[in-house]
Amino acid sequence: MDYAARQRCLQAALERDELDLLLITHLPNVRYLCGFTGSAGALLIGDRGATFFTDGRYAAQARAEVSAARVVIARKAPWLAAAEYLADSGKAHGRKAALGFEAESVTVATRERIAAVLRSKFKLRSAPPLVERARTVKDAAEIRRIRRAVELGASLFQTALKRIRPGVSELEVAAAMEYEARRAGAESMSFPTIVAAGKRSAVVHGRASQAPIPQRGFVVCDFGVILAGYCSDRTRTVYVGRPSPAARRAYAAVLEAQQAALDAVRPGVRASEIDAAARRVLRGQKLARYFTHSTGHGLGLEIHEAPRLAAGQTQTLEPGMVITVEPGVYIPGRWGVRIEDVVVVTPSGSEVLKPTEKELIVV
Amino acid sequence: MDYAARQRCLQAALERDELDLLLITHLPNVRYLCGFTGSAGALLIGDRGATFFTDGRYAAQARAEVSAARVVIARKAPWLAAAEYLADSGKAHGRKAALGFEAESVTVATRERIAAVLRSKFKLRSAPPLVERARTVKDAAEIRRIRRAVELGASLFQTALKRIRPGVSELEVAAAMEYEARRAGAESMSFPTIVAAGKRSAVVHGRASQAPIPQRGFVVCDFGVILAGYCSDRTRTVYVGRPSPAARRAYAAVLEAQQAALDAVRPGVRASEIDAAARRVLRGQKLARYFTHSTGHGLGLEIHEAPRLAAGQTQTLEPGMVITVEPGVYIPGRWGVRIEDVVVVTPSGSEVLKPTEKELIVV
Repeated sequence: MDYAARQRCLQAALERDELDLLLITHLPNVRYLCGFTGSAGALLIGDRGATFFTDGRYAAQARAEVSAARVVIARKAPWLAAAEYLADSGKAHGRKAALGFEAESVTVATRERIAAVLRSKFKLRSAPPLVERARTVKDAAEIRRIRRAVELGASLFQTALKRIRPGVSELEVAAAMEYEARRAGAESMSFPTIVAAGKRSAVVHGRASQAPIPQRGFVVCDFGVILAGYCSDRTRTVYVGRPSPAARRAYAAVLEAQQAALDAVRPGVRASEIDAAARRVLRGQKLARYFTHSTGHGLGLEIHEAPRLAAGQTQTLEPGMVITVEPGVYIPGRWGVRIEDVVVVTPSGSEVLKPTEKELIVV
Repeated sequence: MDYAARQRCLQAALERDELDLLLITHLPNVRYLCGFTGSAGALLIGDRGATFFTDGRYAAQARAEVSAARVVIARKAPWLAAAEYLADSGKAHGRKAALGFEAESVTVATRERIAAVLRSKFKLRSAPPLVERARTVKDAAEIRRIRRAVELGASLFQTALKRIRPGVSELEVAAAMEYEARRAGAESMSFPTIVAAGKRSAVVHGRASQAPIPQRGFVVCDFGVILAGYCSDRTRTVYVGRPSPAARRAYAAVLEAQQAALDAVRPGVRASEIDAAARRVLRGQKLARYFTHSTGHGLGLEIHEAPRLAAGQTQTLEPGMVITVEPGVYIPGRWGVRIEDVVVVTPSGSEVLKPTEKELIVV
């Protein structure tokens, strides 16, 4: 990971926004800029370089992990240590310097405490999400990690297939998947594993429950891992028992919608157009009103990142963006189907990571 | 869970703080006050009752779970729906009403958006952590749930003992524990499972890694589950191979420190005194400077809640508080030992949940 290059990009962005310094406290952003993976850290960045703050628990880890930044070990919260460090060096800039903070993640209480420490030595300003914007376009090292995470994630569906049968609880299926993920080195799952069977398949966020898989119906499996910091996300829907022609048609419609959305992914296309491509297919099948969520989202160090693939989203896709494409149809109290892959936007179009046949699997 | 009673207590606290309304967006607080367990919800509470806001994904779940509040399903973020609902009903109070928000969890960006929606119809004020304060004292229903979580958590140590042997990876031990937890119905672990063997036992936050357990040394296992919303937390340290007399002495010192701290738990005692009791024992063994963290913390719907058992903490213990007691000693690059239990403060003293023999186990 080229942390120095990432910091240089951020420094240029700071200049455009007339900020002298940025205090970074959102941990995925800290990790992105200097490599620290622990749970307590803050990074201060300006035109004179970067300084990283953590506490004594992470002294050895910070020295081993942090690149392109001085390391300060403090006996207090890292954001507080950073504010006090600034307050002590407040006269380094000739005029009153502008210090940005991350308004989307800093709480009102923390902002007040930072302001109290700095008194009036700095102009404290809400910064736009500069690091999040940079993170939407992944570099080659990040795409390699996401690819590995998606490959591990994909293998878990084989584990699920071995367990899914009537009478087995959803949780038993999820537990087996999670066990394999952990044994293979996943830090954790990237979100609570969804195994939603029978009527529960219509629950969009149907976390695996103690409910047994019924004799007949769809089973939606939506799952992801975090591996070396990067997330995967994948959904496969199978059918237990003999599917009716209507069930087969519904599945085929969602698969066609997903393929239409995947086909639309290329640089220069607006995020809303990917969503529209999926919705158009479902409208043709009179299923659009049962597609109650957006078509996808960016992912990387976090499971939900920009861009959002939804109506009204004017952001255009760029090479290096990594997104999910996951249309679904849900008839409340009856059944649901969702199919999801992770896609990299490439200079010439797109690449689905770990693509597989997606014809309906009947268990 | 008596949600109406909890809301009445909060209404009394609002009156004392001269707040007409409180907007609750911190999800554990929302759950505590009305029972909603989903990932998107906000609760507005005042002297005229409570209103809960969520989005369409959670319509059925909200109607099933939410007690003692009206339910509003909106097509936007719940906090935004709540703010717009207030803006529309702004003249309900005769004078300009004071609306509190949770300054410890609301971000600066969200506060600005709320203020923009409300314009100047309300006095928007940072509220003290009123719900967190109420949550420090658990009611009988909560203690029952914590007890069940601790019992499940305790059983995982038996799983660990079956796996711990030289050459097995730390992660393999953790994965087996987590698998059993999930199969038994845990929603998830309450924090990343720590299995830290050999030299890594000196790493206070030694998440289970791919490292194999060495032929000889301590193995620290620190683990917890979330069951029916409530957390458990427990640490046991075992020795692989033949322990030296020095290793036995170190273990005995930590166990004695833990017992001294447990013995000090009773109503009316300051949180700092529990910490001091553990530290006193370790000072006598010249080990106090290797005890680099605080002695414990409250737990409940979250893994870290008030009170903190640390130097300078003047909060006094009350019946119904539930805390961890977890002294440890860490010699960097060599070894570490930690022993932890969850304790309920009772009217007459304390009760350790799921107590066990804690003599050194040699594997």
